[in-house]
Amino acid sequence: MTDETATLAESHTETTEIVLPNDTNTHGRALGGVVLHWMDVCGAIAAMRFANEGVVTASMEHVDFKRPIDLGEVVVVEAYVYETGRTSLDVTVEVRAENPQTDTEYATTSSFFTFVAVDDDGDPTPVPDLHCPTEGERRLRDAALDDRAAQLERLVERMES
Amino acid sequence: MTDETATLAESHTETTEIVLPNDTNTHGRALGGVVLHWMDVCGAIAAMRFANEGVVTASMEHVDFKRPIDLGEVVVVEAYVYETGRTSLDVTVEVRAENPQTDTEYATTSSFFTFVAVDDDGDPTPVPDLHCPTEGERRLRDAALDDRAAQLERLVERMES
Amino acid sequence: MTDETATLAESHTETTEIVLPNDTNTHGRALGGVVLHWMDVCGAIAAMRFANEGVVTASMEHVDFKRPIDLGEVVVVEAYVYETGRTSLDVTVEVRAENPQTDTEYATTSSFFTFVAVDDDGDPTPVPDLHCPTEGERRLRDAALDDRAAQLERLVERMES
Amino acid sequence: MTDETATLAESHTETTEIVLPNDTNTHGRALGGVVLHWMDVCGAIAAMRFANEGVVTASMEHVDFKRPIDLGEVVVVEAYVYETGRTSLDVTVEVRAENPQTDTEYATTSSFFTFVAVDDDGDPTPVPDLHCPTEGERRLRDAALDDRAAQLERLVERMES
Amino acid sequence: MTDETATLAESHTETTEIVLPNDTNTHGRALGGVVLHWMDVCGAIAAMRFANEGVVTASMEHVDFKRPIDLGEVVVVEAYVYETGRTSLDVTVEVRAENPQTDTEYATTSSFFTFVAVDDDGDPTPVPDLHCPTEGERRLRDAALDDRAAQLERLVERMES
Amino acid sequence: MTDETATLAESHTETTEIVLPNDTNTHGRALGGVVLHWMDVCGAIAAMRFANEGVVTASMEHVDFKRPIDLGEVVVVEAYVYETGRTSLDVTVEVRAENPQTDTEYATTSSFFTFVAVDDDGDPTPVPDLHCPTEGERRLRDAALDDRAAQLERLVERMES
Repeated sequence: MTDETATLAESHTETTEIVLPNDTNTHGRALGGVVLHWMDVCGAIAAMRFANEGVVTASMEHVDFKRPIDLGEVVVVEAYVYETGRTSLDVTVEVRAENPQTDTEYATTSSFFTFVAVDDDGDPTPVPDLHCPTEGERRLRDAALDDRAAQLERLVERMES
Repeated sequence: MTDETATLAESHTETTEIVLPNDTNTHGRALGGVVLHWMDVCGAIAAMRFANEGVVTASMEHVDFKRPIDLGEVVVVEAYVYETGRTSLDVTVEVRAENPQTDTEYATTSSFFTFVAVDDDGDPTPVPDLHCPTEGERRLRDAALDDRAAQLERLVERMES
Repeated sequence: MTDETATLAESHTETTEIVLPNDTNTHGRALGGVVLHWMDVCGAIAAMRFANEGVVTASMEHVDFKRPIDLGEVVVVEAYVYETGRTSLDVTVEVRAENPQTDTEYATTSSFFTFVAVDDDGDPTPVPDLHCPTEGERRLRDAALDDRAAQLERLVERMES
Repeated sequence: MTDETATLAESHTETTEIVLPNDTNTHGRALGGVVLHWMDVCGAIAAMRFANEGVVTASMEHVDFKRPIDLGEVVVVEAYVYETGRTSLDVTVEVRAENPQTDTEYATTSSFFTFVAVDDDGDPTPVPDLHCPTEGERRLRDAALDDRAAQLERLVERMES
Repeated sequence: MTDETATLAESHTETTEIVLPNDTNTHGRALGGVVLHWMDVCGAIAAMRFANEGVVTASMEHVDFKRPIDLGEVVVVEAYVYETGRTSLDVTVEVRAENPQTDTEYATTSSFFTFVAVDDDGDPTPVPDLHCPTEGERRLRDAALDDRAAQLERLVERMES
Repeated sequence: MTDETATLAESHTETTEIVLPNDTNTHGRALGGVVLHWMDVCGAIAAMRFANEGVVTASMEHVDFKRPIDLGEVVVVEAYVYETGRTSLDVTVEVRAENPQTDTEYATTSSFFTFVAVDDDGDPTPVPDLHCPTEGERRLRDAALDDRAAQLERLVERMES
């Protein structure tokens, strides 16, 4: 049985990785696929914490890699649920990289995932409604909704040009 | 130095994987992030074969996972270059899964990646123009362009609804 | 239940890998054991596709590594069934490497594996007979049989010298 | 060149992992060595963020595993610097596990690592002094110092009994 | 059912690893966590061989890393049971590194683990008593007991200074 | 510079692994390719210890897998140099598996590898002559030479039948 509501804060997940040799191409930069894998795992944990169920990845939105990440840099991935359907959870995932030696930090990429909650037989199962009791949570939810709409508009413009 | 043109066929890449325990969640289904990683690597090989240069992942379009893939199933990933910019390569990547015991096969997901060719210093470097000398190559190129346009339309519709 | 026959073409499997840092020794060359692992997995997929059953590796013939493979090179592994016993499948596996930057390609190694088909209890189970309906399949089957005989002769000569 | 001081908050690192099949023994429980590896990496990131230098692990204190962690559970690792020497950094690392389906959470283990900051030649290099400008940071620092002293006392008692 | 006694020699385990790129930090030195993982696995095998049961890691004593281990070096891990409780096994684990090119060898680290034997339900289960029939086994057992006592004394002194 | 002779005992290498989930197929049995990888790494360490140089795998003889190895079983790999050429080293590698719960042990497979010693540029470099000062070493060397000859005879007979 599932709670009727859960908060955005309950889903908030942060994970920190370091780029090791096997995560890189021959130029010493993180493979795109490694970063996508970290994003999916972090997003899935956010969704599981919210739904208190296992989840499967249903879709991922457009991803731009704004900057390559170098070997030895620290990668921080953050995720939270910003919208829910009957059995689905929309999760925003942001990635930033830090160079621990120069103490600089920069946004790397972000995307929007949809996960579906599944019961022990692997069948879709209802999820709680999203509840944002604090001002901070409402701001995060609105930021995700706005970013997602803005991303789609950029895609449409790019396609039409 | 780079050749002036390269063919779609030169970029064609196929890779076949088997879903092992560590690729799965606790329901015995392939993690979305593992599939995204395989797609990125296969797409990058297609781009490198076309450009004869190293590449970095610049972006990835929307991905829908149409069906979960089970432990022990065989996953086939296919990729080819369907459009080029000055230093960028647009690559389509398709994933299908096979159950070797029931001898069934089904489409799983597909997406569109953009890679940028980089020289040994990691700086963007020009790529050949795409050449499609055969009827088959022209058909593949047109299919990718059409699918990408159709995918965007579906996204717009979904957003507006 | 098993089909009475299956074709060589049904078993044909190709997989493409890129040599990452962890696949290499301190000279930046692919470890022999990594290549053997890729060969075994590709051969096992060919055998499973043919038999529509799980398989276990029963034996592998002599392997010569003709040339080292460097970090960042692309490795293509191809396999198909060329002979069958009651519960066993003989599979040939060929490996070639490509340097995507110089656009050169060279044969690396090849070998002959025998797999045994197993049912859900792990017990040996009958496999279909090999059927080669096309001229191309008959040519591939004969090439594998000839290569295997030639390899054995070379081993005998080497031993006697 | 190194800053003269850095704050406890600058070093704070949190990472979230999910226990996958390859992290477990045949009873479906996380291997101790996998948890130790996660602790070391999280602690090293905390130390690097504080020192703005690479680090090597010099020592790890006694570790008790209070409870096994099951396949599919979420593991949260938190680390921060609580004391510094001339070139060394003392880092506390705590591990807790969550069962996302039952929404329960429990302390798993904790330990104290010492890292040494190293320059690009791998030689020890001075680190900033620890600065705790906020009440919260002072409380965290004191908690780590107290816990470490208490752990040693328990070891002595256990040895004498 | 468990034998009433087992010998130290039955538990003796040696494993040999080579430091690959992914085991290292950006200075080309083995990550502490990788070495801890190897120690735990080697110690667990020693405990399983002694108890003829599965085991879980209960605790690990203080670890000093006396020297970094470089990429490409060979790491030898040795473990044996030196003391038993009703369901617990005390195992000493030593690590030495060899540089195969200079033919030099040096002690790297050592520690003391406690494992608990578990039955198929994961519940603690009695272990055999330790039996040391040979002079060599008695010497190894005594060396471990002495080293563990000496390590604790050093910790106490360090804490008091 | 290389010593003029080295002993068989200097090359002797033993490594112990445990079969983890990711090493297995969907029947819970070790993948053949994983075992081949362990054999290659163990053999390469034996060759490096003998030659005091890096090595590359030149060839591997026929391998029979006498018995599958199950998840959770302990695998022991042993290797030593039994013959040398000017720049090449012949290494025998034996694999046995233990079930720690039933305390049974059985031979799994064995093979003969040839490695080539390489200098820092990756070029072949002379190796020491094999020296067997003890009766035990001479017995091991003769056993390897006899086994290799016997294996070839079995292959010839099988081919002729």
